[in-house]
Amino acid sequence: RQYFVNADDTVPEKVVVQKNSPRGVHFRRAGPRQRVYFEPEDVKACIVTCGGLCPGLNTVIRELVCGLSHMYNVNDVFGIQNGYKGFYSSNYLPMTPKSVNDIHKRGGTVLGSSRGGHDTHKIVDNIQDRGINQVYIIGGDGTQKGAYEIFKEIRRRGLKVAVAGIPKTIDNDIAVIDKSFGFDTAVEEAQRAIDAAHVEASSAENGIGLVKLMGRYSGFIAMYATLASRDVDCCLIPESPFYLEGEGGLFEYIERRLKENNHMVIVVAEGAGQDLIAKSIPVADQLDASGNKLLLDVGLWLTHKIKDHCKSKKMEMTIKYIDPTYMIRAIPSNASDNVYCTLLAHSAIHGAMAGYSFTVGMVNGRHAYIPFHRVTSTRNKVKITDRMWARLLSSTNQPSFLSKEDIMEAREAERLANRLPVPASSSEHTKKHSASVLSNG
Amino acid sequence: RQYFVNADDTVPEKVVVQKNSPRGVHFRRAGPRQRVYFEPEDVKACIVTCGGLCPGLNTVIRELVCGLSHMYNVNDVFGIQNGYKGFYSSNYLPMTPKSVNDIHKRGGTVLGSSRGGHDTHKIVDNIQDRGINQVYIIGGDGTQKGAYEIFKEIRRRGLKVAVAGIPKTIDNDIAVIDKSFGFDTAVEEAQRAIDAAHVEASSAENGIGLVKLMGRYSGFIAMYATLASRDVDCCLIPESPFYLEGEGGLFEYIERRLKENNHMVIVVAEGAGQDLIAKSIPVADQLDASGNKLLLDVGLWLTHKIKDHCKSKKMEMTIKYIDPTYMIRAIPSNASDNVYCTLLAHSAIHGAMAGYSFTVGMVNGRHAYIPFHRVTSTRNKVKITDRMWARLLSSTNQPSFLSKEDIMEAREAERLANRLPVPASSSEHTKKHSASVLSNG
Amino acid sequence: RQYFVNADDTVPEKVVVQKNSPRGVHFRRAGPRQRVYFEPEDVKACIVTCGGLCPGLNTVIRELVCGLSHMYNVNDVFGIQNGYKGFYSSNYLPMTPKSVNDIHKRGGTVLGSSRGGHDTHKIVDNIQDRGINQVYIIGGDGTQKGAYEIFKEIRRRGLKVAVAGIPKTIDNDIAVIDKSFGFDTAVEEAQRAIDAAHVEASSAENGIGLVKLMGRYSGFIAMYATLASRDVDCCLIPESPFYLEGEGGLFEYIERRLKENNHMVIVVAEGAGQDLIAKSIPVADQLDASGNKLLLDVGLWLTHKIKDHCKSKKMEMTIKYIDPTYMIRAIPSNASDNVYCTLLAHSAIHGAMAGYSFTVGMVNGRHAYIPFHRVTSTRNKVKITDRMWARLLSSTNQPSFLSKEDIMEAREAERLANRLPVPASSSEHTKKHSASVLSNG
Amino acid sequence: RQYFVNADDTVPEKVVVQKNSPRGVHFRRAGPRQRVYFEPEDVKACIVTCGGLCPGLNTVIRELVCGLSHMYNVNDVFGIQNGYKGFYSSNYLPMTPKSVNDIHKRGGTVLGSSRGGHDTHKIVDNIQDRGINQVYIIGGDGTQKGAYEIFKEIRRRGLKVAVAGIPKTIDNDIAVIDKSFGFDTAVEEAQRAIDAAHVEASSAENGIGLVKLMGRYSGFIAMYATLASRDVDCCLIPESPFYLEGEGGLFEYIERRLKENNHMVIVVAEGAGQDLIAKSIPVADQLDASGNKLLLDVGLWLTHKIKDHCKSKKMEMTIKYIDPTYMIRAIPSNASDNVYCTLLAHSAIHGAMAGYSFTVGMVNGRHAYIPFHRVTSTRNKVKITDRMWARLLSSTNQPSFLSKEDIMEAREAERLANRLPVPASSSEHTKKHSASVLSNG
Repeated sequence: RQYFVNADDTVPEKVVVQKNSPRGVHFRRAGPRQRVYFEPEDVKACIVTCGGLCPGLNTVIRELVCGLSHMYNVNDVFGIQNGYKGFYSSNYLPMTPKSVNDIHKRGGTVLGSSRGGHDTHKIVDNIQDRGINQVYIIGGDGTQKGAYEIFKEIRRRGLKVAVAGIPKTIDNDIAVIDKSFGFDTAVEEAQRAIDAAHVEASSAENGIGLVKLMGRYSGFIAMYATLASRDVDCCLIPESPFYLEGEGGLFEYIERRLKENNHMVIVVAEGAGQDLIAKSIPVADQLDASGNKLLLDVGLWLTHKIKDHCKSKKMEMTIKYIDPTYMIRAIPSNASDNVYCTLLAHSAIHGAMAGYSFTVGMVNGRHAYIPFHRVTSTRNKVKITDRMWARLLSSTNQPSFLSKEDIMEAREAERLANRLPVPASSSEHTKKHSASVLSNG
Repeated sequence: RQYFVNADDTVPEKVVVQKNSPRGVHFRRAGPRQRVYFEPEDVKACIVTCGGLCPGLNTVIRELVCGLSHMYNVNDVFGIQNGYKGFYSSNYLPMTPKSVNDIHKRGGTVLGSSRGGHDTHKIVDNIQDRGINQVYIIGGDGTQKGAYEIFKEIRRRGLKVAVAGIPKTIDNDIAVIDKSFGFDTAVEEAQRAIDAAHVEASSAENGIGLVKLMGRYSGFIAMYATLASRDVDCCLIPESPFYLEGEGGLFEYIERRLKENNHMVIVVAEGAGQDLIAKSIPVADQLDASGNKLLLDVGLWLTHKIKDHCKSKKMEMTIKYIDPTYMIRAIPSNASDNVYCTLLAHSAIHGAMAGYSFTVGMVNGRHAYIPFHRVTSTRNKVKITDRMWARLLSSTNQPSFLSKEDIMEAREAERLANRLPVPASSSEHTKKHSASVLSNG
Repeated sequence: RQYFVNADDTVPEKVVVQKNSPRGVHFRRAGPRQRVYFEPEDVKACIVTCGGLCPGLNTVIRELVCGLSHMYNVNDVFGIQNGYKGFYSSNYLPMTPKSVNDIHKRGGTVLGSSRGGHDTHKIVDNIQDRGINQVYIIGGDGTQKGAYEIFKEIRRRGLKVAVAGIPKTIDNDIAVIDKSFGFDTAVEEAQRAIDAAHVEASSAENGIGLVKLMGRYSGFIAMYATLASRDVDCCLIPESPFYLEGEGGLFEYIERRLKENNHMVIVVAEGAGQDLIAKSIPVADQLDASGNKLLLDVGLWLTHKIKDHCKSKKMEMTIKYIDPTYMIRAIPSNASDNVYCTLLAHSAIHGAMAGYSFTVGMVNGRHAYIPFHRVTSTRNKVKITDRMWARLLSSTNQPSFLSKEDIMEAREAERLANRLPVPASSSEHTKKHSASVLSNG
Repeated sequence: RQYFVNADDTVPEKVVVQKNSPRGVHFRRAGPRQRVYFEPEDVKACIVTCGGLCPGLNTVIRELVCGLSHMYNVNDVFGIQNGYKGFYSSNYLPMTPKSVNDIHKRGGTVLGSSRGGHDTHKIVDNIQDRGINQVYIIGGDGTQKGAYEIFKEIRRRGLKVAVAGIPKTIDNDIAVIDKSFGFDTAVEEAQRAIDAAHVEASSAENGIGLVKLMGRYSGFIAMYATLASRDVDCCLIPESPFYLEGEGGLFEYIERRLKENNHMVIVVAEGAGQDLIAKSIPVADQLDASGNKLLLDVGLWLTHKIKDHCKSKKMEMTIKYIDPTYMIRAIPSNASDNVYCTLLAHSAIHGAMAGYSFTVGMVNGRHAYIPFHRVTSTRNKVKITDRMWARLLSSTNQPSFLSKEDIMEAREAERLANRLPVPASSSEHTKKHSASVLSNG
């Protein structure tokens, strides 16, 4: 009773078009193919989760195991434990529909995860030695880069192995795709922290509630949580630089809001204001175990700065700082993310069975197979000259912290990025060479 | 700091294309226009909500009031009470950003709602007499048909009034648009009932948990709730006829599941099996106050049928029937629906300010202005030959209740519906004549 | 590191005393004894759950298994499946701390439950044959009566078996004890249904929301849920007869509330108004499988009666009926009930290890061992002349439905029940003969 | 329809008694009196909230306002804003049943609160000048001390003013009373943080989740949250000193748990280990605005200490620190706390109307009027030689951190505190002189 996708179906990257727009980049549509590359009885699949926690990880794992079994009768499936390193340093965990039956009701990942370096060659050695021919890799930006390296090494060795990346980022900062799984759940849960901040702030004289949310390079969670709540007076994100002192600065705005309204709520993405902190606290750049630049805690820093400022102005105030990060990351996915995780897992399975290697994702509402390099070469960011951010500014009434020149410059940059035609041949090339190793081989 | 939409931007109805696909229907892209039709100080707007409750109604109301005020400085906004009839039988309620500030935290609609007939002429008389020139109408299929009638009467009288429909249907059964607001929240809340049914069923010998969910003509809530949960053994929807007795029938499946697993959960959409009930209980067709066919309670009916069958087979069993309908409809919208409601309200405002009359909706991930007749002439249904339903069948293992002929027939019907090119001129026509009354006038 | 209870410690049944009150009934205080009756290595324990679901059942099961193991090193523990009948008709399920580790996070009972008759002799035969010497019985009024019968048969046979009853009643209708486990959770969850009814009612013209809550003979859930919420206009319970027509009747009150406030919420306990229904629908008394009188659905009945009345008065109105029963029963216990379930389980274990047979319960804030007959001979009911009910009446403003004579009569009945001294010897007797079979033997 | 409390009714402080126990301290039973001291039309009442937030504050405020109006027809009620200082530095807020109708659905306090010093004379001056004769004071230990001072000043001046204290402490550390309002809600909400810590810990190799909970001097929230959850491996509270290094120390236990189980969860009350921190970081004692000793953040300190230790042992591990304090304090009260807050408010009103001055509280399950000095002279603490703590130790398997001498000493101290008879005359004295100023005057 399977319904097959026409092998020629494509999904365009850009859906808003004018009359004579060029055709633009298109991706292969995801879905079951009439002809599959692997015989089910030959498939030996493995699943790995890398990086920080995100709601929905266990649902994706569950649906990969159940989908392989129910849709293709593939039952040789293993879990790699504790991230990439687990390929060569831990036991492979056999997984069955029964063993994963209830895991989607729990947060976290039953496979464990880790950050930090790994050895691509040792990974591929193990894939080769154990006869694995489908590798499902769930992880963020860095993890998808790693998947691409594994894929290239596999191709170099001429192995018949499909590599399927399933992008995971609670920050929603992966390029090309509409939305990453777990994002809706995270925004929902972030409301709880904002509600608490609002209650704390409004139960005190000159009360300020400050909430730090996830968002290393992209402020999507902060922006959506602010839009979904209506109690936020100021939202600070990495994409929109801000300053503290002087006209149009944050301190001036805080003073004004407290005067007008007696209390306020500030939401700050963890990656916001890093340049300001770097200036105020001269710290050498640091890298965490995964090679990511360590962020200084903008929430604590801002709390102290605001306190100091108010003290210097002899304003009595109370500030309450809430960091709900781990309480957000660790919850199970909500119903809408659950369905999304299921569809992603199924799309990944269909693609791998068809012999493709790719990152799977929803593009303009349709599931598609995206070449690895497209999702890793750039990052999804909030466009601060775009309407969504304009909506936020109008709903919070916060200052834009931008000069007129800043705006013109940002618009021009976006215009260039958006409007320049991508030659059709490049899109063709993409599809032929990256998104399908085996079936065209 | 507003970002304007190019007046030529369009959104295609079909996003999955093959190389030589015809262009297909495109809709105007929603968003702020550089030139608006109304002077803000001349605008007198009103808002009405009709039909059953749906999570998010209050958020849409709030954002219409706040958006008109914050984005366009329009402050002459009224609420019509208790549905269409309120145009001529209740006081008009003045609404301000302050008066609606916290309403999105509550379920229901602060304006009240009603079903049932109304008099289009009396409505337009009142619009004319009171000098209203923007009418925002939030409601389902029947309500949008009413909006179309109001719009036609307004056009006939040559009034300069924009009519903006915001489609509301908890069943997600409105055509063209990606998803209706409140749907995510409803599916989330439906999980609670399914969880309870699962617990009741699995705490008894031969326990059956039966949950009736909304879905008069379309089984989307039942299908998504089943996919989001993993505890459902059988999902029955209006689109997929089923039968009780004999080989491949529901009773046979129930017996098998209880034997295998000792308990089971059945989800049934309210509109499922109506033909079966009609046959078993000869009742004259009835219409409710809105002219909708009255549904017989399939949940109670099925409960009795299953009990009778098990008695006749001397199977001891326990069945618990849960109808969570009102508990689902009445909750406030979740964060993701909150953001969606905000965007819908803003899109509606931008369109009305530009002088268009339309139904607003998200089409392939972009907000668009859709001619009324397109959303009312057909209904969004679960395609039972499509992949989503195939996924559900594979996850529940329930029988398909379909003969081979049924499947072929359904596929052919869909193929015809989907693949036949819609002449470009028709789409042009559409845009010129229906979606924009005033700005082209 | 155990702290032992002095064997002479007692807990008084009445805690409010006047200067020369007689001493009254006292119960043995629960807790670990310095000297235990059983050698841990000789203990073979079993656990059974009977009757309807109640939040916390799995927590009690878990803590019995873990407590026996951790506190006394007893590891021979079995679960009886599907209620009393499971003693002679199902396999005994071995239970370990590991196998029950996560069950408290789920609603329902992992052992299954059932209503209906059972054979005391066959049960005791099986206890005897399998060498079981500790029997933990979790269930309501009828189940505790059954436990008393089992205890008497065991005593008759001279077996060295301790029988520990843990009272379970979501209705909180068991006598003597302060509160039954799961009650807090049920009241909490009932709020959700009341909230929904309130939203539905207030979003319609003359909207009535009607919620049926559990409470066969006692209206505690309805009363507490009404007090905890503030949106209920009328609460009907079995203890307080009401009438529909005429002065001071329900219809008059409904008309008044709708006129004043446009909408209203009614909460009705399932056992309320049974005499009225019996009169209006002449149905022969029916008994369910457990021998309980079948209740006619007061919610549906009331819905129809109110509709008919309004029709006859030509009042347009909308009524929404919500029955959340199974959604309340099936949820996991909240934190406070979790702790209470743990303490009950531990108290039961300490008592059984000391060789007592009893029902365990909290009496005036202290855990005590109560003779079986005390909890089964009477039922805990809402005292309608008491302050709690007076508080409710003052908060809802509903009519009392009582004549002056009714009140006088009820007060006198209570006065007699409460004030008559219970001879000290009876209390002594109780403790010696019923609450401790073995240790005094 | 009010039911009156016999004026002689008392509630004993100790309910567990042996045969020849002395009578002990008894408190006046709370409840409506047949004769009241104030004429309703003469009453002018005010309400003030002080100190940190606690779930239920708004419910108490609401029920004071509604109860005064509905039960005694007292409608002259004012809110004092922002704590004690508001008596002389802010406007008095008129409060009506209508204005407080929905406030119990929000967390925090609509009156605002503050910590810090205040001037008793200026407060009483204002009470006197404005003709206020009932003062309701909601706050913790320090606030009740302040209430006692206000009461003494009022008595000194011979004013006919009743002072009713309603003890508020999320830590549950107020002496005499069974439980403070909001405590159940706090424990419930603390589960969410523990769940998140458990997920984070178990999704990493050698993962540790560390949760800091409220509890400055008393570890009740930490202890109950640990008992309600089953995922905590170690619970540290102020009452039970611990040490890090060496045999029986925390580090040793952490190493063992990680080896056994690969991950662990630690819960620490904010007041735990303060002596250790003071030693390790030489900081001068600091007092906050209310004169409370500032606590050093034991959570951050412990995180660093554990990290350093593991580094020195070359153990790879991940530690996630969660501080949910403000997210717990700010939520609305659950149903059970809602009912409790209502009863407390009503008891306070009845007492004030009868002319008493007192702190109200539940003592052994009955509401009672307690002389101020009894609740402020000592503090409710977890008894670490008691059964509740023993239960916790047995459920977590953590080390007791106690030497044999420690235990003997603590037991002796408790024995002395508990068993020494309090002379009956002292209890009489108490009742006559402190708990009732006016009615005996």
